[in-house]
Amino acid sequence: MTTLEHDAGPLVSLADYGQAARARLPERARAYIDGGAGDETSLADNLAAWNRLALAPRVLTGAGTADTAVTVLGRRRPHPVIIAPTAFAALAHPDGETAIARGADATATTICLSTLASTPPAALAAAVPDVSRWCQLYVFRDRGVTRELIATAEAHGFEALVLTADRPVLGVRGRERRHDVRPAAASKGPGAAVNLRAPADFSAQIDAALTWDDVAKLASQTALPVVVKGILSAHDARLACAHGAAAVVVSNHGGRQLDTVLSGADALPAVVDAVAGEIEVLVDGGIRRGTDVVKALALGARAVMVGRPVLWGLAIDGAAGVQRVLELLLDELATALVLTGAGAVGALGPDTVLPAPWARS
Amino acid sequence: MTTLEHDAGPLVSLADYGQAARARLPERARAYIDGGAGDETSLADNLAAWNRLALAPRVLTGAGTADTAVTVLGRRRPHPVIIAPTAFAALAHPDGETAIARGADATATTICLSTLASTPPAALAAAVPDVSRWCQLYVFRDRGVTRELIATAEAHGFEALVLTADRPVLGVRGRERRHDVRPAAASKGPGAAVNLRAPADFSAQIDAALTWDDVAKLASQTALPVVVKGILSAHDARLACAHGAAAVVVSNHGGRQLDTVLSGADALPAVVDAVAGEIEVLVDGGIRRGTDVVKALALGARAVMVGRPVLWGLAIDGAAGVQRVLELLLDELATALVLTGAGAVGALGPDTVLPAPWARS
Amino acid sequence: MTTLEHDAGPLVSLADYGQAARARLPERARAYIDGGAGDETSLADNLAAWNRLALAPRVLTGAGTADTAVTVLGRRRPHPVIIAPTAFAALAHPDGETAIARGADATATTICLSTLASTPPAALAAAVPDVSRWCQLYVFRDRGVTRELIATAEAHGFEALVLTADRPVLGVRGRERRHDVRPAAASKGPGAAVNLRAPADFSAQIDAALTWDDVAKLASQTALPVVVKGILSAHDARLACAHGAAAVVVSNHGGRQLDTVLSGADALPAVVDAVAGEIEVLVDGGIRRGTDVVKALALGARAVMVGRPVLWGLAIDGAAGVQRVLELLLDELATALVLTGAGAVGALGPDTVLPAPWARS
Amino acid sequence: MTTLEHDAGPLVSLADYGQAARARLPERARAYIDGGAGDETSLADNLAAWNRLALAPRVLTGAGTADTAVTVLGRRRPHPVIIAPTAFAALAHPDGETAIARGADATATTICLSTLASTPPAALAAAVPDVSRWCQLYVFRDRGVTRELIATAEAHGFEALVLTADRPVLGVRGRERRHDVRPAAASKGPGAAVNLRAPADFSAQIDAALTWDDVAKLASQTALPVVVKGILSAHDARLACAHGAAAVVVSNHGGRQLDTVLSGADALPAVVDAVAGEIEVLVDGGIRRGTDVVKALALGARAVMVGRPVLWGLAIDGAAGVQRVLELLLDELATALVLTGAGAVGALGPDTVLPAPWARS
Repeated sequence: MTTLEHDAGPLVSLADYGQAARARLPERARAYIDGGAGDETSLADNLAAWNRLALAPRVLTGAGTADTAVTVLGRRRPHPVIIAPTAFAALAHPDGETAIARGADATATTICLSTLASTPPAALAAAVPDVSRWCQLYVFRDRGVTRELIATAEAHGFEALVLTADRPVLGVRGRERRHDVRPAAASKGPGAAVNLRAPADFSAQIDAALTWDDVAKLASQTALPVVVKGILSAHDARLACAHGAAAVVVSNHGGRQLDTVLSGADALPAVVDAVAGEIEVLVDGGIRRGTDVVKALALGARAVMVGRPVLWGLAIDGAAGVQRVLELLLDELATALVLTGAGAVGALGPDTVLPAPWARS
Repeated sequence: MTTLEHDAGPLVSLADYGQAARARLPERARAYIDGGAGDETSLADNLAAWNRLALAPRVLTGAGTADTAVTVLGRRRPHPVIIAPTAFAALAHPDGETAIARGADATATTICLSTLASTPPAALAAAVPDVSRWCQLYVFRDRGVTRELIATAEAHGFEALVLTADRPVLGVRGRERRHDVRPAAASKGPGAAVNLRAPADFSAQIDAALTWDDVAKLASQTALPVVVKGILSAHDARLACAHGAAAVVVSNHGGRQLDTVLSGADALPAVVDAVAGEIEVLVDGGIRRGTDVVKALALGARAVMVGRPVLWGLAIDGAAGVQRVLELLLDELATALVLTGAGAVGALGPDTVLPAPWARS
Repeated sequence: MTTLEHDAGPLVSLADYGQAARARLPERARAYIDGGAGDETSLADNLAAWNRLALAPRVLTGAGTADTAVTVLGRRRPHPVIIAPTAFAALAHPDGETAIARGADATATTICLSTLASTPPAALAAAVPDVSRWCQLYVFRDRGVTRELIATAEAHGFEALVLTADRPVLGVRGRERRHDVRPAAASKGPGAAVNLRAPADFSAQIDAALTWDDVAKLASQTALPVVVKGILSAHDARLACAHGAAAVVVSNHGGRQLDTVLSGADALPAVVDAVAGEIEVLVDGGIRRGTDVVKALALGARAVMVGRPVLWGLAIDGAAGVQRVLELLLDELATALVLTGAGAVGALGPDTVLPAPWARS
Repeated sequence: MTTLEHDAGPLVSLADYGQAARARLPERARAYIDGGAGDETSLADNLAAWNRLALAPRVLTGAGTADTAVTVLGRRRPHPVIIAPTAFAALAHPDGETAIARGADATATTICLSTLASTPPAALAAAVPDVSRWCQLYVFRDRGVTRELIATAEAHGFEALVLTADRPVLGVRGRERRHDVRPAAASKGPGAAVNLRAPADFSAQIDAALTWDDVAKLASQTALPVVVKGILSAHDARLACAHGAAAVVVSNHGGRQLDTVLSGADALPAVVDAVAGEIEVLVDGGIRRGTDVVKALALGARAVMVGRPVLWGLAIDGAAGVQRVLELLLDELATALVLTGAGAVGALGPDTVLPAPWARS
């Protein structure tokens, strides 16, 4: 599926797409997509944290080609990259989530549709029927809306429900405030039933006081696996195990919620240790290189989620841009698997990573 | 009292106010307000130190709203933010301390009036009678002046005396020397009785050789609680307990006295440990974000003092600017309390903070 | 051979040559010569890592002059600097490897000819018959080509075979991709037999799935010592011992293959420890100063390899530039040997180096 | 002797004098005075190292005024600052060492005359008879010259001989090489007897192979105390004790000899520990602030040497500039002694310093 050496245009890395997208996007869209909370310490650290880990390659292992296949939520997938739920994709490109799904489909990537998507779940399923898809879920004060969301997801081929746990209230996002970001179009996504037109509407309607018992109740109401996204501690990971979650996503919400928290990269090992294989662990935040993916897998993640780079690809070239961004990342992943000497994902382990000497200086 | 999401103008953070104030203030006022001692290592570190601490949030705790209330010196206060004593507020705005007090009053914030205030204590009390107020105290060579100060504070509703212990002599402040800063107006504040017209006058009149026995004597002369400000070691914190202090403020005087000393953030844990609950501990220096306040409280501080940001707000928009700066900080504090999963101040503890991985790199 | 104080032109350090070469070389050549993999973290760290080591000099030891002589692969050499194999030297200067060999010969430096050289081995041997020379070796899918390479090296006075183990596939090199680097001229070097015209040809023809058994087989097929280049772990160093290697080169391929791996400097001590004197250890990556060489030797390396600086010298002034770069490095080495108090290479030891205090801050 | 608050001109710190001197000095003089060895890592680290130490002040100790007096080599001195030997002062100002001595005399500072001074020792003694003075000493191949130097020093009121141990050969100084620095005037200083006209002459005439036995011999030939300058290890400090030295100066020669060695600040504690009070320990390198002096004394140094800042003062304003630079440093020292709570030098101790938290990040 991926080629190790190919003809690359002038955008040869995810960071290149980011730079190009920042040059093209209107200021407000840029503020919304690229901004973070507070002093954006965690936003920056999400990238830096992967770079504080070094890889420990072995040579002459006989691993001349890469096998990127993994199993996630019981399904065999050709690779471990999943598209994170990001709101209002139409800010980046008029084709929004449909274009993302097309790029995902072309690269056998799973997409997680945001509650604040510009595209309704049924429409997405109809437009790109073969894409592997998950559905993000917030629990609304009106529990009827939540039940409706679950039914919709189940009816349209979504394979998992992803409950975002780290956004009871909106983070202190300076760039959004400075540019008064208010997505003009109403959400037509899973949350459309509650008439969401702006983050403020959204904050007013979700249940900010959710507890782990709500997770257990949710899990009992659906046959779909429930993934809890936004975990940063072993303590919460154990609670996820105890309340029926099928998986957790170690995440700080792209650095957009509480600033100065751990990155996914730094929080991952303790969570992997805490769940002890009972449920699956995914991670997101700052994945920009194939080497980052290798590090996440080596530390025990089943898969990684990627958010902003997908929107950059979308902004640059619609579905083709999304596809290209994913291809670049998957090519890099394959190269890294060969160059670490692992070859297959299963051959990666804790010994593949070590603290980077340059990060201690 | 605070709202989590509101319409923010283009100045959306305390740092924004700082930048705007630096652009507006005359050079000498800027040198006096923003300058520090020596190479300004501690000045910069006061901010950096909070950022070397990471927050460890919990999710799905059911804490959907924030309760910022605390008890300080035996009084229940709606929040833990106190305005630090800063000299010559008239340098920033003609309304000086009166405007600060108005902004404080509007946000239920306690103000600590400087000995070198532009406004006499009685005038401040008359102008803003409802504001919660403390009085800074230096001990003068002429002990009669000191006794007069105490009587004035007691007579005009000041709730505490704050003895500044870390300014026996003036620090080596390059910016003040370079711009030959000499506040033109004579002090009309608590120190007016000694005819203070400039820092040099002040240095000549205060008792540079003060000892802990003077603290004990002072505490015996007043019914007001005595707070010792400028403590950076467990050793001195124990001495404060032994000599009748009601509280200490862990502080390096905003980086204006001895350079290359610890920040309040770094000195705080050992002081909290040393006093073992016997007296209260406050902290100042570099508080710019709600997350900084949460970290201070989690490490055991009862309250935090904020100095320069208040002067920035004052410089930009008088009392309204002060109010806005305090609202921003309190909004951020409320958001941080929800997003850490604590909800109430009492739910914060040492587990809420950990060394930041990005600060080890 | 070297003088401690001499008349230096305006290019007085290897870094000066680098800067001058970057100013002179066409963009594509520069991208190929100076570029690295991924975010070029390891590329930069190769230099930084030597700088994270401090030297611990002794004074008044009586060592007034330097003795740089060492023994490498059983041969006494006047100094421990070896020219690393670098592809397509003609990109830097039309005289290519012949000029490098002339500069090497003038300074009694051993050259390791690249498989992707612009000059055939026989031609090099004929042009500069006295230069001490090694031959880089890749194992091709067509093992007949490999056997032919070995025979050629043996027949033309090459003293060792250097098997590059860390390039089963090409690294993710952004600069090469961005500038679409494709050396125009076909390789005329040791790999010419397989008609290599570009990196893609090369990748298609080498055996990416090589194992340590192939090393053992290779060692059994030649009387020349086999050096395995590209080792970064004690584990692989032990395997090298067990499979007939005469030496290993601790190397990350100049930061051009897998990014975020250890530098040679950081990987060296564990490798030296692992081989326990059984075979020889060399190191490359980021050697730019005489003090770097001293550190490598003190940590147990027999010799160091230097790549890019030689190409910079070549780009600036052909053979004379190569000679000058090597003289600068050797002069610095001699000075460092005197100033550490060691005098001779043999007097260096682990006590000569310690972790640099500036690198912990 | 010093005042804590005074009218400072626009040059209010030693760094200010450095900046001003760099703007005024011809390029070659600047290269010679400010340059260092190699990549100038140690040159920069000399300053950074003091800043990696934090001060731990105590308040309310009753220390309202400073007592800077110390005992060095058995003599009571009003303060612990000594002028380091620096060659060719005439590069900075035509009055050279005489002006330095006048500035030293005005501030009761000891001057150490360089072997490569522009002024002969007898002339210096005649011009500024009251200045406290030491004489730097190199051991020449012609031991008669050395004996002559000792006799001259003894005859003209020099109180100590300072043997520089870390310059058997000249360091790799890029700035000097780049600007082809060759002081035009012949040395008229202690080394004039050997007709020194340039560093190359000097290197040719000194004995590069000196040993500790030469120190013992030297100590036996004079009644003056012999100070060994350029020690960076406990090992060499013990040897100094065993070979008759009266003191050592922990120093890396201002970062001008072997690059990437420890700074004086970092090497000091182990040396103090090693000599265990048997001989005195001084330190130099990077002293720019009164807080640096306090840290050196707290770590066990008897006194500190200051080099470049004195030349900056000299370049700006001759003897008056030297005096001003020393006054600034001494004022800062006095302020720091009060603000640490120590008051007197004797009250400083290891508890006064601790590793700086900002330097671990």
